[in-house]
Amino acid sequence: MSPAAVAVYNWDLSEVRFDPATGRKVIYAPARARRPSDYRTDLREIVETRACPFCPGNERETTKEVFALRDSGAPDEPGWRVRVVPNRYPALTPPQGFHEVIIESPVHGERWSTAPLRRIEEALEAWQERLRRLSREPGIRGAVIFKNHGWRAGATRVHPHSQLMALPFIPPQLDYELQAAPAAGPCPWCRGLENAAGRVVFENGGYAAVAPEASRQAYEVWLLPKEHASRFEEIRDLAGLAGALQRLWRCVESALHQPAVNAMLMTAPLDAAAPHYHWRLEILPRLGTIAGFEWATGCYINSVLPEQAAERLRRADPDSVPPGEAG
Amino acid sequence: MSPAAVAVYNWDLSEVRFDPATGRKVIYAPARARRPSDYRTDLREIVETRACPFCPGNERETTKEVFALRDSGAPDEPGWRVRVVPNRYPALTPPQGFHEVIIESPVHGERWSTAPLRRIEEALEAWQERLRRLSREPGIRGAVIFKNHGWRAGATRVHPHSQLMALPFIPPQLDYELQAAPAAGPCPWCRGLENAAGRVVFENGGYAAVAPEASRQAYEVWLLPKEHASRFEEIRDLAGLAGALQRLWRCVESALHQPAVNAMLMTAPLDAAAPHYHWRLEILPRLGTIAGFEWATGCYINSVLPEQAAERLRRADPDSVPPGEAG
Repeated sequence: MSPAAVAVYNWDLSEVRFDPATGRKVIYAPARARRPSDYRTDLREIVETRACPFCPGNERETTKEVFALRDSGAPDEPGWRVRVVPNRYPALTPPQGFHEVIIESPVHGERWSTAPLRRIEEALEAWQERLRRLSREPGIRGAVIFKNHGWRAGATRVHPHSQLMALPFIPPQLDYELQAAPAAGPCPWCRGLENAAGRVVFENGGYAAVAPEASRQAYEVWLLPKEHASRFEEIRDLAGLAGALQRLWRCVESALHQPAVNAMLMTAPLDAAAPHYHWRLEILPRLGTIAGFEWATGCYINSVLPEQAAERLRRADPDSVPPGEAG
Repeated sequence: MSPAAVAVYNWDLSEVRFDPATGRKVIYAPARARRPSDYRTDLREIVETRACPFCPGNERETTKEVFALRDSGAPDEPGWRVRVVPNRYPALTPPQGFHEVIIESPVHGERWSTAPLRRIEEALEAWQERLRRLSREPGIRGAVIFKNHGWRAGATRVHPHSQLMALPFIPPQLDYELQAAPAAGPCPWCRGLENAAGRVVFENGGYAAVAPEASRQAYEVWLLPKEHASRFEEIRDLAGLAGALQRLWRCVESALHQPAVNAMLMTAPLDAAAPHYHWRLEILPRLGTIAGFEWATGCYINSVLPEQAAERLRRADPDSVPPGEAG
């Protein structure tokens, strides 16, 4: 057997970070970034072999709508701007839970980076409406809204859509965060925003885009309200949120060449007040992969520090005001 | 707005399961199995554009070996049967941690389903040897060994290999399991084996292959010692384990058409006794994907109940003794 392993290693030191607010532990490993295939470029496109069931005119291909914003037409006819239908392949069915699809636009292939702002605002309005509606269903305790964009993020359709799941339990991650956040005293996310200096991508009206302290994968970035608020479905400035969301989507697409993305809304439970919770929208570009280490340990390896991620996203921001031109 | 959502749902009921021993929560959703793309068939092959650094003769392409089982030759020369080298792109470096690659065979492309049993046994021997060696390093608290097999499982090389990471902390998942298992009283995994009836794939010598109560993805299956044992690195019957592991690998390849697989060794901490822990090897075929729901909630959606998974794996078992032929 050859001598001890120590002598043969000679790379940059890694850094282990733990975020008590989320319970996430991450090994930041700069040396991994040199791996030839650290970012996966198998940008497989979604292949749709039949007419898109989310396009106007194909309403009969979906389940019956439960909500829509319309210019004209009866339910399940064209004329809608946003349309919500139960998922045809639901993970949960009533009365256990609800699994819905929010069709965010009539325009096939539209992206949040270039969509009219009003469209994003109306998609967010549909999110709010359905959260409020499903919070009145007996037994529903929590909900999550997520958007899988691109094949590597789990999407099977190009047409812009998100999904809502209303659950008969508090999701484990939310449960952890509710217990970890002090019921009295300073909000950990408000404090986090104060201490985020090098991790801020931008501030846009009432919202801040921040690379989190313990980002699970490279370039994870969150959008949070700067003023403490526990529930997404109660906010009024949807136009401001739509603007910040579009700006962040542009940063991500520009910096990372239109990657696959998972976006997740984290908001307070539906069945009880949680004034100490701080809602957020998580944006997770899918450049890496989940493999044996993550499955085994429950922690993550990330080759890009959040400070580095924020810097790259900042530099890619097409909507930033150049220094000197700021008001 | 159209009427309440309830009327339009009409699928099979889902089932939510929670495993207190692992803290895992899973929504079993049979209706999801009807989704056209529930199993992803983008079986992208690994493309290697240069000579394989793990093949005999290319030893200079790796870091210097820290352990080998050899027929002949000096360190970093051909003649080895199993060879361990520090990972060239380590997630952790000494003294923080160790990240090693176990090259399990000189034969490029060899798989555990068809490899000589003695080869699997020697790979497991190398696992034990390195765990014992690294447990003596100051500051090392826990370790995980994992095998990423196939592109979708995160592998970038075809040559059979696994990885060891020795960590300066107890991994969060292990930490949870140690705290959840009662220090006195019945072992939850021993009890789990007693109650596993419909989830048993086979029993082979001292080992049982079982689909766990809360399987994270379709066809997850575990190999556990039937007699309580907390540490993998202390077991003596490696030949028996190699036989059970090969049999299980054959079941998975046969039932699921050679899928990508993550395999993970869960064993007791290296820095302290944990006699109440029960080690296991987790086998996770990578048929599905991790998307927004899982990232947001920390729980899983699985369209195949573990009882169904075990039945399919049992029927595919090429090494089972047909009824009537059993001794």
